[in-house]
Amino acid sequence: MTIRAGLVGVTGYTGMELARLLAAHPAIKLVCATSRTDAGKKLGELYPFLQGFELAETEIIQPEPELLAACCDLVFLAVPHGAAMEMAGKLRAKGLKVVDLSADFRLRDAATYAEWYGQAHNEPDCLAEAVYGLPELYAERIRTAKLVANPGCYPTASILGLYPALKNRLIHCEDLVIDAKSGTSGAGRKAAVGSLFCEVHDSFKPYGMPRHRHTPEIEQELTRLVAEPGLTPHVTDQGHKPLAGEALTVSFNPHLLPLTRGILASIYTRLRPGVDEAQIRAAYAEAYAGQCFVRLLPAGKLPELRNVRGTMFCDIALVPDFRTGRLLIFSAIDNLCRGASGQALANANLMCGLPLELGLEAAPIVP
Amino acid sequence: MTIRAGLVGVTGYTGMELARLLAAHPAIKLVCATSRTDAGKKLGELYPFLQGFELAETEIIQPEPELLAACCDLVFLAVPHGAAMEMAGKLRAKGLKVVDLSADFRLRDAATYAEWYGQAHNEPDCLAEAVYGLPELYAERIRTAKLVANPGCYPTASILGLYPALKNRLIHCEDLVIDAKSGTSGAGRKAAVGSLFCEVHDSFKPYGMPRHRHTPEIEQELTRLVAEPGLTPHVTDQGHKPLAGEALTVSFNPHLLPLTRGILASIYTRLRPGVDEAQIRAAYAEAYAGQCFVRLLPAGKLPELRNVRGTMFCDIALVPDFRTGRLLIFSAIDNLCRGASGQALANANLMCGLPLELGLEAAPIVP
Amino acid sequence: MTIRAGLVGVTGYTGMELARLLAAHPAIKLVCATSRTDAGKKLGELYPFLQGFELAETEIIQPEPELLAACCDLVFLAVPHGAAMEMAGKLRAKGLKVVDLSADFRLRDAATYAEWYGQAHNEPDCLAEAVYGLPELYAERIRTAKLVANPGCYPTASILGLYPALKNRLIHCEDLVIDAKSGTSGAGRKAAVGSLFCEVHDSFKPYGMPRHRHTPEIEQELTRLVAEPGLTPHVTDQGHKPLAGEALTVSFNPHLLPLTRGILASIYTRLRPGVDEAQIRAAYAEAYAGQCFVRLLPAGKLPELRNVRGTMFCDIALVPDFRTGRLLIFSAIDNLCRGASGQALANANLMCGLPLELGLEAAPIVP
Amino acid sequence: MTIRAGLVGVTGYTGMELARLLAAHPAIKLVCATSRTDAGKKLGELYPFLQGFELAETEIIQPEPELLAACCDLVFLAVPHGAAMEMAGKLRAKGLKVVDLSADFRLRDAATYAEWYGQAHNEPDCLAEAVYGLPELYAERIRTAKLVANPGCYPTASILGLYPALKNRLIHCEDLVIDAKSGTSGAGRKAAVGSLFCEVHDSFKPYGMPRHRHTPEIEQELTRLVAEPGLTPHVTDQGHKPLAGEALTVSFNPHLLPLTRGILASIYTRLRPGVDEAQIRAAYAEAYAGQCFVRLLPAGKLPELRNVRGTMFCDIALVPDFRTGRLLIFSAIDNLCRGASGQALANANLMCGLPLELGLEAAPIVP
Repeated sequence: MTIRAGLVGVTGYTGMELARLLAAHPAIKLVCATSRTDAGKKLGELYPFLQGFELAETEIIQPEPELLAACCDLVFLAVPHGAAMEMAGKLRAKGLKVVDLSADFRLRDAATYAEWYGQAHNEPDCLAEAVYGLPELYAERIRTAKLVANPGCYPTASILGLYPALKNRLIHCEDLVIDAKSGTSGAGRKAAVGSLFCEVHDSFKPYGMPRHRHTPEIEQELTRLVAEPGLTPHVTDQGHKPLAGEALTVSFNPHLLPLTRGILASIYTRLRPGVDEAQIRAAYAEAYAGQCFVRLLPAGKLPELRNVRGTMFCDIALVPDFRTGRLLIFSAIDNLCRGASGQALANANLMCGLPLELGLEAAPIVP
Repeated sequence: MTIRAGLVGVTGYTGMELARLLAAHPAIKLVCATSRTDAGKKLGELYPFLQGFELAETEIIQPEPELLAACCDLVFLAVPHGAAMEMAGKLRAKGLKVVDLSADFRLRDAATYAEWYGQAHNEPDCLAEAVYGLPELYAERIRTAKLVANPGCYPTASILGLYPALKNRLIHCEDLVIDAKSGTSGAGRKAAVGSLFCEVHDSFKPYGMPRHRHTPEIEQELTRLVAEPGLTPHVTDQGHKPLAGEALTVSFNPHLLPLTRGILASIYTRLRPGVDEAQIRAAYAEAYAGQCFVRLLPAGKLPELRNVRGTMFCDIALVPDFRTGRLLIFSAIDNLCRGASGQALANANLMCGLPLELGLEAAPIVP
Repeated sequence: MTIRAGLVGVTGYTGMELARLLAAHPAIKLVCATSRTDAGKKLGELYPFLQGFELAETEIIQPEPELLAACCDLVFLAVPHGAAMEMAGKLRAKGLKVVDLSADFRLRDAATYAEWYGQAHNEPDCLAEAVYGLPELYAERIRTAKLVANPGCYPTASILGLYPALKNRLIHCEDLVIDAKSGTSGAGRKAAVGSLFCEVHDSFKPYGMPRHRHTPEIEQELTRLVAEPGLTPHVTDQGHKPLAGEALTVSFNPHLLPLTRGILASIYTRLRPGVDEAQIRAAYAEAYAGQCFVRLLPAGKLPELRNVRGTMFCDIALVPDFRTGRLLIFSAIDNLCRGASGQALANANLMCGLPLELGLEAAPIVP
Repeated sequence: MTIRAGLVGVTGYTGMELARLLAAHPAIKLVCATSRTDAGKKLGELYPFLQGFELAETEIIQPEPELLAACCDLVFLAVPHGAAMEMAGKLRAKGLKVVDLSADFRLRDAATYAEWYGQAHNEPDCLAEAVYGLPELYAERIRTAKLVANPGCYPTASILGLYPALKNRLIHCEDLVIDAKSGTSGAGRKAAVGSLFCEVHDSFKPYGMPRHRHTPEIEQELTRLVAEPGLTPHVTDQGHKPLAGEALTVSFNPHLLPLTRGILASIYTRLRPGVDEAQIRAAYAEAYAGQCFVRLLPAGKLPELRNVRGTMFCDIALVPDFRTGRLLIFSAIDNLCRGASGQALANANLMCGLPLELGLEAAPIVP
């Protein structure tokens, strides 16, 4: 059986990446893609790199919910927040499954959304049914979800890096610093002077601090993990949990790398007294046992962004520094694949009863 | 049925690329890899990017022909010229199929080899049986070959770009200029000051002219194509053909790009009188009909290296410039995949009775 | 005495580069810069890299000819063609010296301009008085010029590479191929998807052929050089010369490099019979004797773009290839400095009676 | 009067950078440079980018102290630690002024040196007279110094970023995290696989933690600053101060950027209660008043590495984040210029009675 998928918003980098991944997917077929500006073309005309694939013949159409409903089982939304919300409501009303790559359904609380995104949330029903699509934490719920909120790229790297340490109370949760570095594809494919080659190449800079929009998303998910020490997040319901005794704020600080793909989150935490290295490694090993996309690096090894290029891997290194009483955590992903379109596809796999990793098994392109 | 493959020389970039491609190959299994310096390790230790793949468990052994013969059906040689020659002789003596990625069996004439590579050719029997592994020209012969000389990266791009024009006598063959640009992986993984990041990054330069070693390889193959106008190269024998009336020399001029993968050959030729654009396009369309790896770009489109990244594609654009009486040909490949390890794997596929493109179907990683 | 300079169009890369160079110029002071969008700011606000320099206090004003005339002796025009033409006319009418970095006064023939730039030339008087600002050829005339047409970046590299060979009739002039590669700053600072970091980085491509607008400029200047074998270009008048016996067309083929600054022109020519290497080297040595910006590389050395980064140098290598009867010429410049703003400043130096190289003596930043 | 300078170790990146800066220095002349492997050549042969400068004629000689003493007033040591120590001793014995770019005289305590650098310190007299060459803190002492220990690149960025905040007790000093990112030139010019273009390009990674050798240097200097609240470091003696009440450790965490030049230190600190933004800005403004190389960015602006490329600038941004109770400090330098050779030259300027910034005034090359 082939799943018929639609893609709303094919001209951005996340749309492009979904097209790349679907070009070789054995069970999900991209039957239509939308673009206001390129409707009428075929996908292969828009993206010469897809020539030679069957997918190159896929038609680009206008983003009309009726057209999508007529030919799709599931739709990926790769449009900006706000636009995604509206389209999600219409598609859900027609019964389609939706994976939303925007931020519109990531924050479980509409007021927090309004505060950080500067607009009201108009689809409360969708928000209520949305499942946060981080497979290592919520695979069970994703399998039955109708609407998945695909996590942000920075939150994916950050949450996967911190989850076992917080869940197992290895570190203080009031003193978390994330120094994150992202490839430039994270800035999107919009024509903007700041994203020009000559502005980014051979340079490096911090940006957007101290109030990057991924901050509340990270804090929301991490708070859930510490709220109940015994929490098995796989089975919890979606309601926002009050803080149980400890405030959790994150100092989240993004930087822009002169490369296309990849996020490295360098996470600085303070060890609780008495925690030793064996405990730390055991906690991570247990938390990610059986998870095909998380690779825990052996002691002494540190991640490199190229090792995850084009893949779903999250490479995690743990560096306890007892001299300073810290646990350093390094978490590396491909922001476009794991941090966006690949994760969306993994979620779609689960929603369609397919194996999580189907079509996502290629090795990274190194060098 | 699974083919058991060995890889001699796993620490270079072509060895690394073969490992990457074999990580997901459905019918050829890498059962051993050799390295003098890393023997005893597992592949996943050497290459962290392979962790999580079954291949990561493959043992690295010493390059002993006996060990290889004991466990392999076919062996890839990814060692420098000279070393490859010797190993090929030993492995062929034990009956193994061999794909040699070095230059040792590309030049059909031992004297030419000695002239350009500065050493005698000690394996004349192997040289006699070697098939030049360019599938678009020699697939038929490759299928039954025991020893395939995997083409050089520059020759692959250059020959594929020129083949239909020369075969169909669209251009003068005494006035060929190839301005080729290669990614730095073409320089290999040897520690050398000239290949350091800070020497290559943000710069660009010509090198190695006017006597780059790929020159005789290109001239040899192109000469064969013009030697007999009616030549169907797929069925010709391997003997070196005398020139039939016209001398063919190539001005081949390589440059070093500040990127990892990719070759663009910009080929400058002079049109024969009366040739029009339709004729040109028809000749290329016919020559590459049914060839899954050659993508002829539509008029007005030019190739980009990223569109072939990590793939077997050869993207070819044709620009007739009647103002100057020229045909400009642009031919783009990934030097590591199409120009080395991917092509070696395609040749192995043919030698083992598998479909040419098996395990080589992934779309390029763009952006 | 301090020359008061104005800069029309400060927000593009050529404007930015002029500001950089003027920050440390000992005799020319940038007293005002114009920008429609940023008028009212100070230069240091627009360009944080200039903070700490006196120039950071320079006011950005509206591009009004009256304002410029009130405070400037000389004006640099760093605006697109068309706009430059109009501004040049107004500023010349007020008696100001003008260095125009656009293409508006480079083509000596208005009809050729109209053909290649798609618009009529409305300033015939200015065109008649304009001097082509290539100091190695026209320093004498530039010293007394009121309006200098600053050469294009590709023409600068190409003409300097070919000049001695053509002037001395070392090569055939009917068979010239220029394979040129430019850094991305050549595409300007306009927000365009094709110039985004993620579209350019780690890739490479040809573009704009076979009719790039620098073609007629190169052909015009080279034709002048061959028109009269005994021509001493320094003293010739500006009128367009009819071809003297030989047609000169150039196959000019640009490519886009994933780096910011630099042009390498790889020029493929055919040697006239009997020309030997000593003759070639002597011709170049003589042609560029005393020229501080041209560096002839010793035999066996080839240029690298980094060696000219940020400078006025034009590094030229000569590779005679007697096997193929060719002379390969490699000519490297920084497209922003030598190919635009640095050359404009050198021209301004001459026009103001200052030494050619004043303020342009810094060594390239290597690595 | 011209100062005659020698350079021991010209083949590395710091030697190369010193040569670049001295090419245009008006008062210090590089009269000889040493290299065991390249002795006998001229500097212009070794470094083609220097052709055309008078400096290109400088002879490369063997590193013999007698030869240096015969022709130099001052010598720069750009050799590895250990080798520098020995040469410094010999040159000081002959009365020459020395600026040592290695780590050999940075740690004031020989035991700490032995612990972190794995070898004994054999030049205690030199160590006793060495002055730590950070001009913003120690200009007074540098002016009369005979031996200057040029600071490490990471310490330069880190100390300048933290100095006013620690000196004015704006932040807690027991909770300092430095996430530092360096360009690849920091790894030196040694042929090593890990520094190859294809290993670094398009990737990013942490390295060397948690015990990078710059850690004790940073801790030593910062400890001095907090040891005595009223400390005016300019006039203090050089003896190591015991900690006054508070332990100061730093979690220093370096990363490798895919670019050539630049360090960004992202410094995460915790504000002391009651400190407001005005206080913070005033403290930095006062601490760096009159310092020509430190640029404090206005509120809302963040540094970019390109803005300091090739210069002595240290660009500092202050981001108070009251939501998390933190002060984020971003400090950007060029690791080769400010972090090594430019700073060495500034120190030499002071030691020779020249203005600090002489020969170091060029604007950064942007873009």
